[in-house]
Amino acid sequence: MTPLVKKYFLKLPHASDEDKTPDLERVLDGLRREGLDVDTVPLSAIRKLSRALRPVDQLRDNDFEVTATVCLAGRPELIDVEPGGFAGRRSTAFGLAVDLGTTNIVCSIVDLNSGKSVGELSGTNPQTAIGEDILARIHHCLKLSEAGQPAGLEELRLAAVDAINVLAERLAHDAGISVGDISCACISGNTTMAHLFLGLDPYNICRAPYVPAANRFGSFRAKELGLNIKPEAPVVVLPNVGSYVGGDVLAGILASGMAERDGISILVDVGTNAEIIVGNRDWLVACAGAAGPALEGGVVSSGMRAAPGAIDRIRIGENYEPSFSVIGDVPPYGMCGSALIDLLSELFRTGLIDGRGRFIPGRTERVVNTEWGAAYKVTENIVFTEKDIENLIRTKAAMYTALTVITAEIGITFNDIESFFVAGTFGEYIAADKAVSIGMLPDIPINKFKLLGNSSLKGAVLALLDLKSIEQIENIASTITYKELNASAEFMSLYRAAMFLPHTDASLFPSAYKS
Amino acid sequence: MTPLVKKYFLKLPHASDEDKTPDLERVLDGLRREGLDVDTVPLSAIRKLSRALRPVDQLRDNDFEVTATVCLAGRPELIDVEPGGFAGRRSTAFGLAVDLGTTNIVCSIVDLNSGKSVGELSGTNPQTAIGEDILARIHHCLKLSEAGQPAGLEELRLAAVDAINVLAERLAHDAGISVGDISCACISGNTTMAHLFLGLDPYNICRAPYVPAANRFGSFRAKELGLNIKPEAPVVVLPNVGSYVGGDVLAGILASGMAERDGISILVDVGTNAEIIVGNRDWLVACAGAAGPALEGGVVSSGMRAAPGAIDRIRIGENYEPSFSVIGDVPPYGMCGSALIDLLSELFRTGLIDGRGRFIPGRTERVVNTEWGAAYKVTENIVFTEKDIENLIRTKAAMYTALTVITAEIGITFNDIESFFVAGTFGEYIAADKAVSIGMLPDIPINKFKLLGNSSLKGAVLALLDLKSIEQIENIASTITYKELNASAEFMSLYRAAMFLPHTDASLFPSAYKS
Repeated sequence: MTPLVKKYFLKLPHASDEDKTPDLERVLDGLRREGLDVDTVPLSAIRKLSRALRPVDQLRDNDFEVTATVCLAGRPELIDVEPGGFAGRRSTAFGLAVDLGTTNIVCSIVDLNSGKSVGELSGTNPQTAIGEDILARIHHCLKLSEAGQPAGLEELRLAAVDAINVLAERLAHDAGISVGDISCACISGNTTMAHLFLGLDPYNICRAPYVPAANRFGSFRAKELGLNIKPEAPVVVLPNVGSYVGGDVLAGILASGMAERDGISILVDVGTNAEIIVGNRDWLVACAGAAGPALEGGVVSSGMRAAPGAIDRIRIGENYEPSFSVIGDVPPYGMCGSALIDLLSELFRTGLIDGRGRFIPGRTERVVNTEWGAAYKVTENIVFTEKDIENLIRTKAAMYTALTVITAEIGITFNDIESFFVAGTFGEYIAADKAVSIGMLPDIPINKFKLLGNSSLKGAVLALLDLKSIEQIENIASTITYKELNASAEFMSLYRAAMFLPHTDASLFPSAYKS
Repeated sequence: MTPLVKKYFLKLPHASDEDKTPDLERVLDGLRREGLDVDTVPLSAIRKLSRALRPVDQLRDNDFEVTATVCLAGRPELIDVEPGGFAGRRSTAFGLAVDLGTTNIVCSIVDLNSGKSVGELSGTNPQTAIGEDILARIHHCLKLSEAGQPAGLEELRLAAVDAINVLAERLAHDAGISVGDISCACISGNTTMAHLFLGLDPYNICRAPYVPAANRFGSFRAKELGLNIKPEAPVVVLPNVGSYVGGDVLAGILASGMAERDGISILVDVGTNAEIIVGNRDWLVACAGAAGPALEGGVVSSGMRAAPGAIDRIRIGENYEPSFSVIGDVPPYGMCGSALIDLLSELFRTGLIDGRGRFIPGRTERVVNTEWGAAYKVTENIVFTEKDIENLIRTKAAMYTALTVITAEIGITFNDIESFFVAGTFGEYIAADKAVSIGMLPDIPINKFKLLGNSSLKGAVLALLDLKSIEQIENIASTITYKELNASAEFMSLYRAAMFLPHTDASLFPSAYKS
């Protein structure tokens, strides 16, 4: 595995009358002995060179020992030179992986030597305060300054960059390093998020014929993007395939490994939108649907993202009393997507709701009336209302319908699926059997389901750890085909049929009806 | 000839449901049809792309015609995209050639399509106000800010950058273009000047073992250097060979063509220092001596650089009356190097001075006494004193001695020289026969002398006009050997013998003594 960036300790021969090699060429010669043919060196690194070679006092000290940080993507680039050699953490190159979601941003600092994460943190994407959803943000970009500059776009760009800087700063602090020690970054987001992060006009993403400004962005330097990591650190923004299939999806495909398998896999990524990818090493088909943020905590009254304080698993026991687990060692504050799926499944299993998601009155005093109508009371402050259930049933019906339509269009059935990957920020907590029992996921053998967790972040981590991953993502991008799932009459009729727990057609969910 | 930068007008297919190629890839496809495989595009150019494709109002207009500016060095880079196509000058890429001298800065804007200069301007290097000579400037770089930052270096760097910006702005204005239309630049200077321009610590240039920070700088972007031309314009800083042989000398060798010839040539570049290069296509030897700024206008009382108002040629006629020509259509203000050489030769020829450079009293009332001693009065305000003559004799003696020593060390005589190139800012005005008559240049057939003018600037122009030139300069850099001319006893004795007009050894200057 070749990471994006690596540090090299160089013990160089001293300059002398016999060896008048200049400082820059001396360092490059040292790297050549390490097998690296570097020919690009940014100005800031050249400027630091002479001092780094003679660090303490250039009039006397002259030790010619430096630590060089080299970006290994494409033709190697020397991005930093520091005086002396380092031990422990300082001898390590660190990378920042970013899942830049529409609603949430998740950052992880990765030790590029060991491949291990040294910390992970998430936060709300502050762009939500400017525009709740993607369309609102794209329209916000029409706002121009008096001088005709794209002020709205810049506002959104800075919001994302600042949020990443804050998360990176806290992560670095907790890991006992400086943000300046982070030598590279990889940003994984959907097409609009990538455009906003780079300051590219997203207008044509949502306007026919739906052509983004760019699909392949390449690599930039941290300082030109405003990221406060090492100024010359390469920042890779994962490519997208068009307006609807972004780098986050490609990262997920990479993380699943489905594009290297012979058998057919499905990958479902439930974020603010739900993306479905079907395929194998030879072909990949993607489609997207507005899953709605029901599972991300944005719509459901007590919903929240999978973070400390979120109930992640929940079960209704004797006397309809709930038992649950909470992420982190804190009191429960809300429920994340996996708990919502659990709870819907449990309410149905225990007969507290009917197939349409209506509470059956009088069964237990845990079902109360709130200002939003009937609700199941998990705790004093956490309730699950009929309205929430309705939202969730819409989401699960949309998901199941999309899965039905896309497999039918490809000409396969759910039985042809070898592996079924479930991704999303709450994807590591989800119980596949519960998702099947509410008719969200198809009724296939439970061991075929694989929980990926945040596959967008995982893909970004892989891209930092191995240059081959970036190549693989580009191969995936060139293989993938996007299929538009039109809201046709047939789709609508399938969708209506799926608006029932688990489904109006019992034969589709034999195991659910059996239990 | 492939210039450093070229403009391409692209008429691109419109985006449609059948052709969803993103804006960036659409432009790159258009360039591919022109035979250009561009894979690097800076962020600023990507940001401009979408607007350039749909310029007037992106809600309606959609013409997909752009003019792309591409840097052709190495792997082609798209450095700018402008809406529509251009006619006339705006369809042309312009380059800025800069001779960054210790005392003077000369800039020229070059039309990269026709290869012609559209204007040339020179000015004093404002660094002279901070440190008169190179050593003073290198020591100024030891000045640190309170925060330990290299404040002196930054001060010198900005002085040079600002001066170039001012000259470029005036040149662009006179040429009827904007500085933003200048798409590339080439900087030719000695090793210290290149270091100061780039903000590289020059300290080790003047400290044993005399190792610069770098010999090969490569190419940078205008905006990172502070040049106000097109922000992403490539700026090539010509390489040097060590502390004493700079890019200006390599540019001169390129401009002379001596490194492509079988016969042996000598190139003498008289600037603040005098550099001598001897060689042919197989070998090149360089040496440098402190010629002193006598010929550049810095030391001689009425001296000035070759600019409007400078007397460039001068002759003493009947009754010791001078006749002269002036650069530009302006009254004379001073004398440039070529006039000084002429005048010294004429004073000697007409018997107004003796072989030691002393005025012979009473010959003409044009010889007057000034506060600096005896002087020849060219005009009311322009005089040439005994002190000036002494300085000039030192310069010419140093030059002739260096030529004698270097050819002897190589093992050739002046008779082996096929071409003798004379370069320097005043080098296009110099009269070789006069320089021979004062014993500055060797007494070889006069048709062997070739006047190059400002060969540093000429080399920079060539580097802008043809990528092969940059390769050639790098070949020259790797061929050249530097010889230290030690101030040995032998050198000093030769020098003293040359402190006479034309020389104490008459046999060395048969034609001078003949005339």
